[in-house]
Amino acid sequence: MSADLLDVCRLLADYGWFADNGKYDEWLGLFAKDCSYKVVPKENVDRGLPAGLIFCDSRAMLEDRIETLQKVSKYNIHTDRHIIGLPRIATVNSDTLLVEAPFSVFQTEQEGDTRLFATGLYRDQLQRNSKGLMVSQKLVVLDSFAIPTLLATPL
Amino acid sequence: MSADLLDVCRLLADYGWFADNGKYDEWLGLFAKDCSYKVVPKENVDRGLPAGLIFCDSRAMLEDRIETLQKVSKYNIHTDRHIIGLPRIATVNSDTLLVEAPFSVFQTEQEGDTRLFATGLYRDQLQRNSKGLMVSQKLVVLDSFAIPTLLATPL
Amino acid sequence: MSADLLDVCRLLADYGWFADNGKYDEWLGLFAKDCSYKVVPKENVDRGLPAGLIFCDSRAMLEDRIETLQKVSKYNIHTDRHIIGLPRIATVNSDTLLVEAPFSVFQTEQEGDTRLFATGLYRDQLQRNSKGLMVSQKLVVLDSFAIPTLLATPL
Repeated sequence: MSADLLDVCRLLADYGWFADNGKYDEWLGLFAKDCSYKVVPKENVDRGLPAGLIFCDSRAMLEDRIETLQKVSKYNIHTDRHIIGLPRIATVNSDTLLVEAPFSVFQTEQEGDTRLFATGLYRDQLQRNSKGLMVSQKLVVLDSFAIPTLLATPL
Repeated sequence: MSADLLDVCRLLADYGWFADNGKYDEWLGLFAKDCSYKVVPKENVDRGLPAGLIFCDSRAMLEDRIETLQKVSKYNIHTDRHIIGLPRIATVNSDTLLVEAPFSVFQTEQEGDTRLFATGLYRDQLQRNSKGLMVSQKLVVLDSFAIPTLLATPL
Repeated sequence: MSADLLDVCRLLADYGWFADNGKYDEWLGLFAKDCSYKVVPKENVDRGLPAGLIFCDSRAMLEDRIETLQKVSKYNIHTDRHIIGLPRIATVNSDTLLVEAPFSVFQTEQEGDTRLFATGLYRDQLQRNSKGLMVSQKLVVLDSFAIPTLLATPL
């Protein structure tokens, strides 16, 4: 259990760091070969509505999405900063962890203004293999359905 | 010591998660049978003034308060998100931990606006018993005496 | 490795707590005898430009800086709150850790307004000695070159 918590903290720290530092290949490397990545407003999650802002149910889709982000972000130059809260390991099977962690993301624009970009909850399924923990499913539950600017950022 | 830090991280993660997800019975379940829960502005704490926004010095009072919150929040529908920082275990007795942890709470309103709701410091006394760590005293030190809206949220 | 992560979490928790609670001597005590402390905007770090907001390359300079802060802060009374994210231990030598951790700092003014003050990334070199971990180099990478008010706060 303790090892699990520490490993999850390491994974989440890497996750935010790779995203904020534009290390998109390393960020993708945190995901398992078979994976999904979805960004859905809390309102829809609560009502069981599937519509979301991002819906990738394969690694190829996620890679494609990230490639697009890198192109788009030329037109929206900014710095992201993830502050991820303490994770909660909800259920543990032998090789599978269900993890929930609150997050906040701040964004700084070229003019120097920093503002709150998004808050929400990660709902992750992690798989332990020989290389350590990998993300097999990531559901990013956004507290707001209204994201102020272009979502040119991996949350 | 290491076990303590990990257990405290788990407790704080549960604390924020239960509050944000409206799991008020589970949230109450983190408190010991004999407990207190107070929300006091830092200004008053610094000057030794006892007046606060919430003052519950028994579990019955805390249960009553939570029941009221649940009713009131029908008129102020919002989503809370606690981001709790790394805890500091100040003193350790055999079964008692004194823990301080900084926190931020963000609130998203029905229209989709997310804003900073409160920041401050938890000053907790935790008791270890057979079920693990429980909160025997919680002092929520608010950085501001001015909370922007109705305090219909367990901090 | 696990011990390292826990020790780093403890150090960062102390770091933020000492700063926010005005315990400047204890805050200084986290630094090694030979140390540096720099606050530089990300833009300059990315371009390899050395200019920063604060540049202390000896402990004496840092002590002097802190003494000044304490005097200046009489004219800018406020409360700081550091929320430091999960740390990432990038490289580990025998007695040296390279640590990166995202941070956010909120500031509450006398009128009770709380606002986001700064976000960024700590890039720390830590040294392990008989007293535990100490900061030998601290680079505070600020996401914005524009800090809204007087930097009368140790970041």
